[in-house]
Amino acid sequence: MSEQTILVPNNSLITKTPEEGRQLAVKMARLTIKLTQPDAAIREKLRPVYAEDANMLISIGQTVAMEFATIAQANNHWK
Amino acid sequence: MSEQTILVPNNSLITKTPEEGRQLAVKMARLTIKLTQPDAAIREKLRPVYAEDANMLISIGQTVAMEFATIAQANNHWK
Amino acid sequence: MSEQTILVPNNSLITKTPEEGRQLAVKMARLTIKLTQPDAAIREKLRPVYAEDANMLISIGQTVAMEFATIAQANNHWK
Amino acid sequence: MSEQTILVPNNSLITKTPEEGRQLAVKMARLTIKLTQPDAAIREKLRPVYAEDANMLISIGQTVAMEFATIAQANNHWK
Amino acid sequence: MSEQTILVPNNSLITKTPEEGRQLAVKMARLTIKLTQPDAAIREKLRPVYAEDANMLISIGQTVAMEFATIAQANNHWK
Amino acid sequence: MSEQTILVPNNSLITKTPEEGRQLAVKMARLTIKLTQPDAAIREKLRPVYAEDANMLISIGQTVAMEFATIAQANNHWK
Repeated sequence: MSEQTILVPNNSLITKTPEEGRQLAVKMARLTIKLTQPDAAIREKLRPVYAEDANMLISIGQTVAMEFATIAQANNHWK
Repeated sequence: MSEQTILVPNNSLITKTPEEGRQLAVKMARLTIKLTQPDAAIREKLRPVYAEDANMLISIGQTVAMEFATIAQANNHWK
Repeated sequence: MSEQTILVPNNSLITKTPEEGRQLAVKMARLTIKLTQPDAAIREKLRPVYAEDANMLISIGQTVAMEFATIAQANNHWK
Repeated sequence: MSEQTILVPNNSLITKTPEEGRQLAVKMARLTIKLTQPDAAIREKLRPVYAEDANMLISIGQTVAMEFATIAQANNHWK
Repeated sequence: MSEQTILVPNNSLITKTPEEGRQLAVKMARLTIKLTQPDAAIREKLRPVYAEDANMLISIGQTVAMEFATIAQANNHWK
Repeated sequence: MSEQTILVPNNSLITKTPEEGRQLAVKMARLTIKLTQPDAAIREKLRPVYAEDANMLISIGQTVAMEFATIAQANNHWK
């Protein structure tokens, strides 16, 4: 585990817009994977595995939906 | 990854009706998959895979349910 | 994808009772599957697949639980 | 599908205690499965399948946790 | 099914501390499994199956996270 | 099961920043696994299994997202 990995970019859940909030959700999901598998070469090798697997693409979508729910709440849903 | 992919159509979670909120949930779920697999040809090839697989159809349903929960909250459940 | 598919019956999350809310959760879960697989013949072919598979029956149960959580919140849990 | 299946016993999410709320969560999870697979003989055949499969037992646990979250909220967590 | 199985220890979601709340989450997750598989001998046989399977260990972690979310809310997050 | 395993470090969900909240989410996810599989040697053996499996990396990401949702709520999303 690389304790150095930043897990929350800018150390904040607050974003200006829903679009930026969604990008943050994607980044946070990726940073957890980076923490769990710090070796960039292995992560690179796994990329085509999940990007061409319908099941994993769906699972990644669920992860982003979960992260986004928290970010949206933090931003009062940008209302 | 295509940084250009729009992740939240119209950059807003607010919709006029539950039906439109549900359509937004479906679109947002698809846009995450587009971001993860930007190659339209590969996505097209995967479509019949999940559309004829009972297990994946259920998983897609769960993703839409998750996205919709956040959108419904953003819209105060259209009350 | 059939853009014509209605995703939220009556375009409302409000129901008179928890029982009707639960029925709505089941319908909404099915309508997402109908949107993803608009061919009724294929859906019909898949029905016995998931209805006789313990794992998929459980997954369907989870989808309904998720949809119901949102509907219950929309109805202030019918309190 | 048996439209007759009751999905929410007593048509209410309100229970006197957490214990009764948890029992309701278990019942609601089972009633969704009954709705999806109305044939009691098939459900009976599937019971030993999931009751002796570690993975499915865990999935059932997740379903109950989801149902219970909604019931607990409906009861203001019995505070 | 053993109707006698207690599902919520002490019939309460309230705990003094987050640590005790987390222990309650673990217990509640286990009690659902006990309800679904009341035969202690079979449960004992399944233990090494999931305890040495990375995938199931992760799934158990998700179940505990779900139970804990509800317990934390019941305790106003011990603030 | 090792009853001694601490499940919530510092017995608190409160953290100074989102970054620390995310680190707590990761730790809590790992501690549940430690409780379920107390044998460090077996956990060590399982590490490369999930760290090189795209599907499990995604599942771990979902667990962290779930834990983080609760921690973020406990901290009022650090607003």
